[in-house]
Amino acid sequence: MYRFECDYTEGAHPKILEALAATNLEQTPGYGEDSHCANARRLIREACQDPEMDVHFLVGGTQTNTTVIAAILRPWQGAVCADTGHIAGHESGAIEATGHKVLPIPTADGKISAEQVRALVEAHWADATHEHQVQPGLVYISHPTEGGLLYTKAELEALRAVCDEKHLPLFLDGARLGYGLMADGTDVALSDLARLCDVFYIGGTKVGALFGEAVCVPNKALLPDFRYSIKQHGGLLAKGRLLGIQFETLFTDGLYFDISRHADAEAMRLNAALRAAGYSFWNSSTTNQQFPILPDALCEKLSKDFSFSNWGRAGTDRIVRFATSWATKPESVDALIEAIK
Amino acid sequence: MYRFECDYTEGAHPKILEALAATNLEQTPGYGEDSHCANARRLIREACQDPEMDVHFLVGGTQTNTTVIAAILRPWQGAVCADTGHIAGHESGAIEATGHKVLPIPTADGKISAEQVRALVEAHWADATHEHQVQPGLVYISHPTEGGLLYTKAELEALRAVCDEKHLPLFLDGARLGYGLMADGTDVALSDLARLCDVFYIGGTKVGALFGEAVCVPNKALLPDFRYSIKQHGGLLAKGRLLGIQFETLFTDGLYFDISRHADAEAMRLNAALRAAGYSFWNSSTTNQQFPILPDALCEKLSKDFSFSNWGRAGTDRIVRFATSWATKPESVDALIEAIK
Amino acid sequence: MYRFECDYTEGAHPKILEALAATNLEQTPGYGEDSHCANARRLIREACQDPEMDVHFLVGGTQTNTTVIAAILRPWQGAVCADTGHIAGHESGAIEATGHKVLPIPTADGKISAEQVRALVEAHWADATHEHQVQPGLVYISHPTEGGLLYTKAELEALRAVCDEKHLPLFLDGARLGYGLMADGTDVALSDLARLCDVFYIGGTKVGALFGEAVCVPNKALLPDFRYSIKQHGGLLAKGRLLGIQFETLFTDGLYFDISRHADAEAMRLNAALRAAGYSFWNSSTTNQQFPILPDALCEKLSKDFSFSNWGRAGTDRIVRFATSWATKPESVDALIEAIK
Amino acid sequence: MYRFECDYTEGAHPKILEALAATNLEQTPGYGEDSHCANARRLIREACQDPEMDVHFLVGGTQTNTTVIAAILRPWQGAVCADTGHIAGHESGAIEATGHKVLPIPTADGKISAEQVRALVEAHWADATHEHQVQPGLVYISHPTEGGLLYTKAELEALRAVCDEKHLPLFLDGARLGYGLMADGTDVALSDLARLCDVFYIGGTKVGALFGEAVCVPNKALLPDFRYSIKQHGGLLAKGRLLGIQFETLFTDGLYFDISRHADAEAMRLNAALRAAGYSFWNSSTTNQQFPILPDALCEKLSKDFSFSNWGRAGTDRIVRFATSWATKPESVDALIEAIK
Repeated sequence: MYRFECDYTEGAHPKILEALAATNLEQTPGYGEDSHCANARRLIREACQDPEMDVHFLVGGTQTNTTVIAAILRPWQGAVCADTGHIAGHESGAIEATGHKVLPIPTADGKISAEQVRALVEAHWADATHEHQVQPGLVYISHPTEGGLLYTKAELEALRAVCDEKHLPLFLDGARLGYGLMADGTDVALSDLARLCDVFYIGGTKVGALFGEAVCVPNKALLPDFRYSIKQHGGLLAKGRLLGIQFETLFTDGLYFDISRHADAEAMRLNAALRAAGYSFWNSSTTNQQFPILPDALCEKLSKDFSFSNWGRAGTDRIVRFATSWATKPESVDALIEAIK
Repeated sequence: MYRFECDYTEGAHPKILEALAATNLEQTPGYGEDSHCANARRLIREACQDPEMDVHFLVGGTQTNTTVIAAILRPWQGAVCADTGHIAGHESGAIEATGHKVLPIPTADGKISAEQVRALVEAHWADATHEHQVQPGLVYISHPTEGGLLYTKAELEALRAVCDEKHLPLFLDGARLGYGLMADGTDVALSDLARLCDVFYIGGTKVGALFGEAVCVPNKALLPDFRYSIKQHGGLLAKGRLLGIQFETLFTDGLYFDISRHADAEAMRLNAALRAAGYSFWNSSTTNQQFPILPDALCEKLSKDFSFSNWGRAGTDRIVRFATSWATKPESVDALIEAIK
Repeated sequence: MYRFECDYTEGAHPKILEALAATNLEQTPGYGEDSHCANARRLIREACQDPEMDVHFLVGGTQTNTTVIAAILRPWQGAVCADTGHIAGHESGAIEATGHKVLPIPTADGKISAEQVRALVEAHWADATHEHQVQPGLVYISHPTEGGLLYTKAELEALRAVCDEKHLPLFLDGARLGYGLMADGTDVALSDLARLCDVFYIGGTKVGALFGEAVCVPNKALLPDFRYSIKQHGGLLAKGRLLGIQFETLFTDGLYFDISRHADAEAMRLNAALRAAGYSFWNSSTTNQQFPILPDALCEKLSKDFSFSNWGRAGTDRIVRFATSWATKPESVDALIEAIK
Repeated sequence: MYRFECDYTEGAHPKILEALAATNLEQTPGYGEDSHCANARRLIREACQDPEMDVHFLVGGTQTNTTVIAAILRPWQGAVCADTGHIAGHESGAIEATGHKVLPIPTADGKISAEQVRALVEAHWADATHEHQVQPGLVYISHPTEGGLLYTKAELEALRAVCDEKHLPLFLDGARLGYGLMADGTDVALSDLARLCDVFYIGGTKVGALFGEAVCVPNKALLPDFRYSIKQHGGLLAKGRLLGIQFETLFTDGLYFDISRHADAEAMRLNAALRAAGYSFWNSSTTNQQFPILPDALCEKLSKDFSFSNWGRAGTDRIVRFATSWATKPESVDALIEAIK
């Protein structure tokens, strides 16, 4: 069985396991105050071209989204996001559990525009009873989105401009950030995120690490006491060095980017083969998630040897998701391409 | 200026002020443990034909909705309601502030059906990742709805049946309950609510009282320690007798029903006059809120002498709301009818 | 039966009932945006000699404490208060329900000193693991305290100084404020509170009103969007004018002060009689609550005609509480004094 | 530098790293639904002699305490624990952040007795105003305690009895459980915990794992939808197998017990040497944490080559903590013993 159902079916990139083994008997202070975390912070700041920003390491995506959002918002505020955003429907109400409403913007493709944010915020303040409603308190976007799409630099700059205009922090969920940064045709670099976001995170769990997300805070004043929040939300790992060692490895010699590029390339090889075979796609993702529209019969045939996700219906056909990752073997994609022909 | 903008522009029915004055120097225990509260509970149980149910008195609607819902739900559960429900958009995120997501059902008219509830609940449990989503934990409806519409007895029975089937409590918000119970053509009586709901409340604030909502709990096992919750949410009035005295008055000699009938009758008199003048309506409300569709020019003319609410647009015309209440004088409605002609 | 068990056994001062009756059929906007609220705000600002401060009206004490504290604190912060403070043990965990720990300071008499606050805050920051603990986020005091004691102006100034030094807002709970301001020997005036506190409230429920607390916010920047918070916590009364009318009445012709002075005078008359009869006291309260230490036999004898509260034991004797109020009749105190002799 | 400052200064037992490496390229489902988690559950059930209990894997201690407690308590309830309990002062208010007060019991040694629990609960219910206070909702204990002490089987049985009597769940925090179970003289076995607790956890982070806590739920009805809670609190690790593999390794061939026994033995070797050298101890811990009382001069001398924690003062001397672990080398303890002589 070849598994394409998601991008976290394996453990970690072998270099990470090697690094963990090599450092295993080192004795270090806990809670992220060790030299590996310090070094990982330095490497990430360099990669982001922001030598001053704060960098914190958390364990997983839901924890990161919740901890960041709860630390930013005041009790009467909510998080503006796409109605398909991860925080809106895939985190068991974690944001609400911290007291905040998610304010969803309907989208066709999972991306929200500066115009939509402006319209929502202005409608709030224009309403005579706005005090009876939840005040928009930050903007949350994902890059890539749940469906693998990317913002352009111009779109991010427009979001930044409306956030400045409306005094809203911009928070970017980068659970699959590597796959976005390495996609063909994107004009968004890591340094753009450091310039345009108040806070964003570089996903490790889905991009080569055992687990771990690196929260980058260019707007340091926004999260002054963030370590209390991390502890309160159960994210201050006792052996914090495990996160430092993993990000140290990922940001040494460009490993994070290389493995992301590999996943994207394998995904686009599959994309090309599907197109050549005459199939269309649910969206125009250029990242590691591909959503072809396939006949049920083909899906059933494929499912004997390949695992993948059902994503919905498109008329009489099925939308499915194939995800590649740092761990996807070219021969697995070869086999899948062969089976599709 | 004649005010029709809402149903809480005046103080209280004169009999309530008289009762407050007559009892003012009585010395009573606090926190709802006085004889007036006891008597009001007895009168309400009689009116509901449920001699056993619990009755609690709270101060206002948002407080009541929040306290009841937070006491019922477990942390991973949310409240199913119409997308136009009061808790969904008019309470500043009070439900979310207690940790719970509101699970909105899209509606055309503000009413949700048993079929919609069943579909939502079954979709939740059928989803392979349901544990990553908020579990439906109760059903919230308003009667009348925000737009003044009423459930039929058959519709409520169907909701009760699906709630039984799916093990969900049914909570009915009766902020304007009197106006619903006294509307022409309704087949829903107070005793039906006691039979069909797990918990509901009888609104006082909008129906003749200075303030106050009577929470009725036919399903006593659902809210065993509810007075802790009331206190925690700031609803345990020190001089709780003020609530007892008001509901005692409202439920003596049918006052609650008489003043509600009056408001409905005046509203329907306005309705008839508007129909006669050729205007159509946003919906078919038979309660104290009427939503005619009027030309802007007429609205502007009327606004010199009458206050009312803007409710939206219908093509080139305007949807407005006129609300009557226990306090509406027939001569005010006469004047409005005259102005419309 | 003469009731001395608490200061909220009656309704409201007759002038308040008269004002409610006189204004009953006025039609006003809701939610505190009416002319009575505006006028009450003006009168309170004048009484506080702070023409700029924000004034909000809420319904009760627990609601007020919770709404203010939740609006000030960030999620990782707690409220410093006396271990006997109302928020620490008498509000069903309302503060914790908003996500915040109460940080109690042990006290003998219910008052906390600037030195204690400084010590607690400095100990927090000096601890190497302070990020694993709750950060002190504000200071809460009551004036009078639960036991009827008063801060001196010098004590309040010292608390202000430490709050400035440590960047902590100072919040004063004035549920019984009138009885404190009118006590013999106090040097604290209402204008001192406006000068020394970031936020405080003037209690109405226990001082002549049916209900209601006036939240005064000299430090306006601290609570910029407070009406959202009030609504979210169920404190934005639909008929907000009821609060405006009551405070308008209380702050016209010094009524609030006159009725407070009356209560204190009656309490001190009882105090003198008890001293003359040879009894000692639990504390040195000069306000409307008196805590004599009495033999059980006397308590039992008194309890036939008088209600009062048990407050604890002092050796073989009992500490009891007698509370007077705006409504206490001199002849009731006469009767009590006679019974004690 | 030899580090004795805590029991999480190294990575993981080498067998765990080997297992992670050996399974690294296996493709498994996420979120704990893989075969390694299933196998680890089976092994833990066997070790606990409870073939039916639920077992869940979470990442860390604060997260585990918070998730369990928030899932058990109703909003008006609090967690009874020792005033020195981890949840009371070392988790940044995580329990309060979920809406619940911690109800501390003063203790000399960090252990709470059945009598203390009974007294607290009975005092609550006996208080006439108990509805104005937080209701005791569960009992939380640590075994070993923060100070390394152990409950006896009789003490646990007495706690179980009072919990049954008062209808309170008993939750045992076993962050250092292995070191407790293997201590000389204890009569408490893992199967006793499964018999006496409603829920407890087996700590991995401090006992040989990279991270991870195994939550055991003998009382399955108590936590019916617990996976929603885990997800909501950010504890549902995407690559859940990492937890399964670690606990699979720890519970194969008794590894968990062997490494715990080693740590205890080294700690008691140090204990004996300190006693022989004439030093006394802060408490009578027989587990991996030892708290000798040492002169400042000795502490300063030792601190050149050894790291340890300051725990407080005892007269003119200092209380310090030395912690051993699965990773402590006998030669490190030899060196420490030599330095003390």
